[in-house]
Amino acid sequence: ARIVSAAQGRGLIDFGSRRGHGPHSGLLAARASYIAGFESTSNVEAARLLGIPASGTMAHSWVQSFDSEEEAFEAYARTFPGATTLLVDTYDTLEGVRKAAAVSPPIQAVRLDSGDLASLAQGARAILDKHDRRQVKILASGDLDENEIARLISAGAPIDGFGVGTELITSRDAPALSMVYKLVEIDGEGRIKLSPNKKTYPRTKQIFRRRDAAGTFCGDLVTRADETAEGEALMEQVVRQGQLVRPLPDLGAIRQHCASQLSSLPERLKKLDATGDYPIEYSDLLEDEARRLMEQGK
Amino acid sequence: ARIVSAAQGRGLIDFGSRRGHGPHSGLLAARASYIAGFESTSNVEAARLLGIPASGTMAHSWVQSFDSEEEAFEAYARTFPGATTLLVDTYDTLEGVRKAAAVSPPIQAVRLDSGDLASLAQGARAILDKHDRRQVKILASGDLDENEIARLISAGAPIDGFGVGTELITSRDAPALSMVYKLVEIDGEGRIKLSPNKKTYPRTKQIFRRRDAAGTFCGDLVTRADETAEGEALMEQVVRQGQLVRPLPDLGAIRQHCASQLSSLPERLKKLDATGDYPIEYSDLLEDEARRLMEQGK
Repeated sequence: ARIVSAAQGRGLIDFGSRRGHGPHSGLLAARASYIAGFESTSNVEAARLLGIPASGTMAHSWVQSFDSEEEAFEAYARTFPGATTLLVDTYDTLEGVRKAAAVSPPIQAVRLDSGDLASLAQGARAILDKHDRRQVKILASGDLDENEIARLISAGAPIDGFGVGTELITSRDAPALSMVYKLVEIDGEGRIKLSPNKKTYPRTKQIFRRRDAAGTFCGDLVTRADETAEGEALMEQVVRQGQLVRPLPDLGAIRQHCASQLSSLPERLKKLDATGDYPIEYSDLLEDEARRLMEQGK
Repeated sequence: ARIVSAAQGRGLIDFGSRRGHGPHSGLLAARASYIAGFESTSNVEAARLLGIPASGTMAHSWVQSFDSEEEAFEAYARTFPGATTLLVDTYDTLEGVRKAAAVSPPIQAVRLDSGDLASLAQGARAILDKHDRRQVKILASGDLDENEIARLISAGAPIDGFGVGTELITSRDAPALSMVYKLVEIDGEGRIKLSPNKKTYPRTKQIFRRRDAAGTFCGDLVTRADETAEGEALMEQVVRQGQLVRPLPDLGAIRQHCASQLSSLPERLKKLDATGDYPIEYSDLLEDEARRLMEQGK
C-alpha cells in the first residue's frame, strides 16, 4: 500500500517472487500486492491460480543469448507482438533505447533496470520522442522501494510504471510482524496473560471504527463482542464450528475494499514518513475485567 | 550458523514457523537451521517430512486454559512424561518456577519467555537447585538473536538452551539476498552484462578453495570450468540433461558437511561482528575474456 501510494497512479508490477522466502511466499506477495493496488504480477503461477493479470518483460539473459541487442529486440517483438517491453540496459542503456526505438512496428515500452534512473528516463524519453515513439512507455526497476519511487516522481522523472520486487516481498524497515494468538476467554470466563510487557485484554472482542464528518477514520473502540457502540463493527463471523458462514469475497472485491479503506485513512497516516498515532480505546467493561483479573493474578 | 556459533554448544530449537513468510518458509527454515547445527524444530510437519528431531514446549494458552498454573503444569507433565518443559512466565515468572519445581516426578526443563532473561535465569536456577531440581534445565526464548544469545552467555546466565524464532526465519540485518542467475556462456561463447555496477564474468566456472598449513580456508580462485588449479574444486556436476548424476546427500551428511566447512573458516570470519574480507581472485583466462568482451561491448 505504501508503494501504491508513492507511485501516485503509475502502474506497478510485482517482481517479487525470485526474492521470496520460498515459492509459496511468491504467491502470497503477488496476491497481497494486487490487493494493495498493483496492476499485475510477473509470477505466472499467481496469475493462473488467482486470476491476477500477468505481465512481464524480458530478462538480461534473453538479450545476452543473441549475437546482438538488435536481434534480441526483434525476436522478442515477434514473439510478443502488442505486448513488447524491451529491457534496454544490458550493454549501454541509451544505445539500447535507440535500438528499441528503431523496432517496427513500435513497441509498447522500454525498461530501465540500473544506473541513475531519473536521468536515464529523461534521456530515454527524449530519444523515443525524437524517433516518433511518443506512445512508448518507460518502466523502471532495480531495488526500488516506496521512498525511491517517491524520489523519482518528485524529481520529475518521466517514468510511467515501476517493477518492484525485493523491497516488496521482503521488508527492510519491518522484517517481522510480532503478531500472536492469545487465549482470551474459556468456558465463559475471561483470561489474560501477565508476562512483562505482554499484557493482554480478556474476552472475545468487537472493534467499532468511527469516522469524522468528512468520512475519515478518527478512532477505534475495542469492546467485548457482546457490547455495542457507535461506529462500524469491524469483526464479522466467517467460520462457525468449522464451516464457512458466508461465501468469501473474491479478489476483486477485496482489492476494492482495500482501496476504499485506505482512502478513508487520515492524511497524516498515509504519508510515507507517517509517525502519527491513531486513537484506540478499550471499553469500560474490558478495562474493568482486565484490572480485576490482574489483581487476581490470572 | 551465526546463532549456532553464538550459543557455544548450548541446544537450539527452531521456533520460526509462526513468523515465516507462508507455511513453506517454515519448512525451509527448519531444514536450514538443522543443517546449521540446531538440535530440533517445533515445526512438526518439518519433523515428519524431513526427519528433524521435533521438540517443543507449551504455549501460554495451555496455562491460561486451566483454572490455575499448578493444574496446567500437572496436566502437561502427565501428557508428556519424560519430555516436560514448562513455560513459567504466564503470570509471575519466579512463582511459576517454584510451581514447576514442585511437580513430581521432576520435569525436564522450564522455559523463560519474557523479562530480564539473565537475572530470571539466575533466580530460576537458585530456586530449582534449592528444591533439589539440579537436573532441570533452563531454556530461554523471546525475540532472541545471535547477539542477544552471546550477551546472555557472556553475562553468565545459567541458560542451557535457546528457542529462536523471529530472528531466525526473518533477517533484520540482511532482509534480502541479492542473488541472480546470469547467462555466462552460449554455444561455446562467453557472455557478459555491462549494466552499471552489475559487471559479470563470462563462462561456466569452477572454484578452487585453498587451505593454509593449519587447514583453514585462505582464499578462492574462480576459473573457467575447464581450468585446473591448486585447491579443492567446489563445483560438482549434480544434474546432467535433467537427470541426477549421483544420489543427493541426506540431511545428516549435509549437516556434517556444514559443520566441517564452518570449522575451517578463518577465526576472524566466525566472529559475530566479522567485517574482514576473504580473498577471491579470478583466473587470467577469465579476466582476459571479460576485458575482451567489455571492449567489444557485449
